[in-house]
Amino acid sequence: MISQLPKMNKQLIAVALGEEPADLVLKNGTLVNVITGELNRGIDVAISGQRIAYVGKADHTISDSTKVIDLNGKYIAPGLMDGHMHVESTMLTVTEFARIALTKGTTSIFMDPHEMANVFGREGVRYMHDEGQQLPLHVFTTFPSCVPATDGLEDAGATITVEDVQEGLTWSNVVGLGEVMNFPGVIARDQKMIGEINATIEAQQTVTGHFPEGSDQMLQAYLASGVDSCHETVTHEQALEKLRLGMYLMIREGSAWQDVKEVIKVITEDQVNTDHIILVTDDIYPQTLVEKGQINHVVRRAIEEGVDPVTAVKLATINTARYFKLADDYGSVSPRKVADLMILDDLEKMEPSMVIVNGEIVASEGKLVIDLPTYTYPDKIKNSVHVQRPVMTSDLIIKTSGDKQTVMTNVIKIIENSARTERTQFKLTANQTGEVHSDLTQDVVKLACLDRHHQSGDISVAFAHGFGLKRGAVASTVAHDSHNLLVMGANDDDMVIAANKLIELGGGMLVVDEGEVLAEVPMPVAGLMSDRNAEDVVRQVQQLEAAWQHLGCSIHAPFMTFSLIALPVIPDIRISNRGLVDVTTFELINVLEG
Amino acid sequence: MISQLPKMNKQLIAVALGEEPADLVLKNGTLVNVITGELNRGIDVAISGQRIAYVGKADHTISDSTKVIDLNGKYIAPGLMDGHMHVESTMLTVTEFARIALTKGTTSIFMDPHEMANVFGREGVRYMHDEGQQLPLHVFTTFPSCVPATDGLEDAGATITVEDVQEGLTWSNVVGLGEVMNFPGVIARDQKMIGEINATIEAQQTVTGHFPEGSDQMLQAYLASGVDSCHETVTHEQALEKLRLGMYLMIREGSAWQDVKEVIKVITEDQVNTDHIILVTDDIYPQTLVEKGQINHVVRRAIEEGVDPVTAVKLATINTARYFKLADDYGSVSPRKVADLMILDDLEKMEPSMVIVNGEIVASEGKLVIDLPTYTYPDKIKNSVHVQRPVMTSDLIIKTSGDKQTVMTNVIKIIENSARTERTQFKLTANQTGEVHSDLTQDVVKLACLDRHHQSGDISVAFAHGFGLKRGAVASTVAHDSHNLLVMGANDDDMVIAANKLIELGGGMLVVDEGEVLAEVPMPVAGLMSDRNAEDVVRQVQQLEAAWQHLGCSIHAPFMTFSLIALPVIPDIRISNRGLVDVTTFELINVLEG
Repeated sequence: MISQLPKMNKQLIAVALGEEPADLVLKNGTLVNVITGELNRGIDVAISGQRIAYVGKADHTISDSTKVIDLNGKYIAPGLMDGHMHVESTMLTVTEFARIALTKGTTSIFMDPHEMANVFGREGVRYMHDEGQQLPLHVFTTFPSCVPATDGLEDAGATITVEDVQEGLTWSNVVGLGEVMNFPGVIARDQKMIGEINATIEAQQTVTGHFPEGSDQMLQAYLASGVDSCHETVTHEQALEKLRLGMYLMIREGSAWQDVKEVIKVITEDQVNTDHIILVTDDIYPQTLVEKGQINHVVRRAIEEGVDPVTAVKLATINTARYFKLADDYGSVSPRKVADLMILDDLEKMEPSMVIVNGEIVASEGKLVIDLPTYTYPDKIKNSVHVQRPVMTSDLIIKTSGDKQTVMTNVIKIIENSARTERTQFKLTANQTGEVHSDLTQDVVKLACLDRHHQSGDISVAFAHGFGLKRGAVASTVAHDSHNLLVMGANDDDMVIAANKLIELGGGMLVVDEGEVLAEVPMPVAGLMSDRNAEDVVRQVQQLEAAWQHLGCSIHAPFMTFSLIALPVIPDIRISNRGLVDVTTFELINVLEG
Repeated sequence: MISQLPKMNKQLIAVALGEEPADLVLKNGTLVNVITGELNRGIDVAISGQRIAYVGKADHTISDSTKVIDLNGKYIAPGLMDGHMHVESTMLTVTEFARIALTKGTTSIFMDPHEMANVFGREGVRYMHDEGQQLPLHVFTTFPSCVPATDGLEDAGATITVEDVQEGLTWSNVVGLGEVMNFPGVIARDQKMIGEINATIEAQQTVTGHFPEGSDQMLQAYLASGVDSCHETVTHEQALEKLRLGMYLMIREGSAWQDVKEVIKVITEDQVNTDHIILVTDDIYPQTLVEKGQINHVVRRAIEEGVDPVTAVKLATINTARYFKLADDYGSVSPRKVADLMILDDLEKMEPSMVIVNGEIVASEGKLVIDLPTYTYPDKIKNSVHVQRPVMTSDLIIKTSGDKQTVMTNVIKIIENSARTERTQFKLTANQTGEVHSDLTQDVVKLACLDRHHQSGDISVAFAHGFGLKRGAVASTVAHDSHNLLVMGANDDDMVIAANKLIELGGGMLVVDEGEVLAEVPMPVAGLMSDRNAEDVVRQVQQLEAAWQHLGCSIHAPFMTFSLIALPVIPDIRISNRGLVDVTTFELINVLEG
């Protein structure tokens, strides 16, 4: 990305010399110096336009026209950068996400609009990217790489091609390739995966990765391709291995995946150089965002685990900027850089009392103090649920082929707070007509996945274990990664009602019991994001969770675990619109054995 | 610079997986891991073609066709990178420099062919750049920025314009703008200086700096322009100031400027983060190169001053690569990177027993084991001394305007081992015809600077103090930065002979006594570089130094101090072909007062 510094360096020089006044001077702060690793006391920061002109004793830059704020020794830190995240996980639009994130000290995100890409392809990515460009938050995009997540096992709404990536890499503020999840494809030298990686390298951008597990040889083959980061590391040992191989280690603390406690040990125990370590959120739900924070929460967690606060801030500022080749403009409070910074009363709490982006005060005491522009998604994006006809009870029938009374059934066993599933089997009893239904005594419930993109009428039905549903049904158009329509229930009638209500709603998540909708989170934007404000969405999600509990499910954030049940790239077993997928063999398998 | 990885990542993947054999495997080494800061023992490195395919236990990459070298625990370190240097200071061609430097573990240099640019402009830079491109040594060029060094005070052989810089930035392996010495011009927002800086930023390259001294406000104004490094730091305090402002600190240890001892205290005493610290040589003479080494000597010096060896190596590898945005390909021993590395028996000694570049063994036990291609400079470049006619005694006359017997004279006082001079005054006695000559009793000798580029016949005459010359004369076409012909002597006759002999020689350095040449270093390449091998040049320079001593001069490397006497950008007073220059006011002044 080409720096915009040439447009204003003459002006910055004039301000640094005291020939022209600064627009804003923050006086008498304690600088969180992520370059030296020090706290520098008694520091003023003079800002001219969007950039920092001077850092030190800035009285000479002050005139009557200069706004001066006395910090009385409070901390001045660079604005925080989230090196890998999906806005869609917050269920909010980029604008509404920014409204909250800015108050938390986030001034730059590197978003991978991967979910949107699965629904609306390059066009959808462009809309989210464009929404980001009109915000004060710096919204950098890593262009989604693996859409659909698999070949031949599911039908997403769209496909991303090498040509799409090449095109996307030319958009301003696209700075790399989004997490290359299809690491088996990379290692197999799949033409599309290598093509996308090479296009990114040739554009002098950054290839971000995703390598949850695999042999050392696989990891090194993956690295050899040019992918050079990973945010899927969950153990201390994996982290050390990746760093030693020169990989950038993105340590993640999202709502569900909380890796800081374990992975941060590379710093607190091994005391490795921190140059290649970056903090990221990956996926956070609306409630986490509003209540705990965004990347500031990850920095706080690192400090809680024993990382020195200046180093912790470094992991989410200059290191991130450097990884994306943006450190000439971002990542530290230094002359010439973009004036993105935050004022903190307490380093450990990491709750900014003021946030400045592009030299403008955007948040104060946890509240946004500017207006954000509105962004309206076109009708096409708000009309994302395309089914052939309403679901009928007959669509959900699972029938034995023979005349057996009991049948061995392949079942998806979910694991609380994990993206993994296990393949398990249950003996289920068929009724007189040979139909096999949910068996609540064994916590085995029916689950269906319905094409919502192509009006094909494709629907697959299977069973899940582990949710504890005793009644009713749940449905979601958030169904990673192809985001078809998922419905699951204790009885077929409620499943039919839940699916059809969600179709009527135009996407989102809901819970039905005895034919009535107990709670719903409408997500008109691609069936992935709400168009409401964050507080409303938090309330809706709380109601949704309560409704899940009412149906008998007591696991944490069940809607999230549910939304991942269709993701055929994480072992062991998944459902897609095409059927039950064994993710260890990448094959479709039968629900009923024999 | 666009990485060439896409050309071979599929092959690297195959080797990492053991599907295809490596070309070379280094077994059982101790990896100097500049990413983590550790020493990793028991490490094999598998190389395929020009790159590293695998780092760890590499037996699976070995077949009959693989060359295997058992290291028995010796250290494997990334090849060293010299982040700022002028090949011309070694008096050698790039090829001959490389022949020595490769044996010292230098695998990349970032050269600023600034001296050549002053003689032959963009065309000369191109020749040196092209010479570098055919070598195994990675010769990256920072394009010279300040040619001539001043406006209106001297006449160099050529001028570098903004258009020249824009053109040069498109050449492969040009990675930035050479040291922007004209910091007053930058601060004054001189159109050319800002134009060059902005062209470099727009080319997404690196703007290297030079800020020896000045106020804090000047430094910050300079930084605000986009210049972000400096190799002119000589005190611990300056170093800390620059780092705190986000500047890259290049710590220099050349032949004359030895800054490590003092400046390294930012690490050994302040213990700052080392991310922004880089080691460089700047200027080394042939003898230092051959006897002490190149950037390996600077690393060794850092270790001697108490820096941990792994950190010291980091300062001349990954940090340098990252500063120039080349860390995707260079700077560490990691899968996918270019296989530039060195084997060391002893980290503190920093004398490689083997050096590998682009996957090829280039040096072993201090000897080059490959042939380097020859490079022939065109006749134009070897014919760089253009004078109107031979020098005559009458050219050297300095005469009082009145009829005074004694006259107050402005004299250049040199300082041993420093680029600085002092303006001083002496009372000299005129002879009967009013001529003022060298006064050996006061160590004041005549000095002349003759245009050697434009056949203008311009010659200026002045006096110098501090060399201790008792007899004879010395001459040089190395005369920073415009590289006119300098001659200095105890008597005018030897000065005339020295100047004319040097003109006949086609440039270089020589010493004359009583009409005879005592020693000479011919430098046919632009009057700056020898076409002989390093050992010959070392011998010639030793003879030159002995001849200087024979004339009575006992200071260290007097030819270097002499060659800097014409540099009108370093205070206080200089000679140029136009006259005596006061570098504090940037004005021409009279030699004789009144």
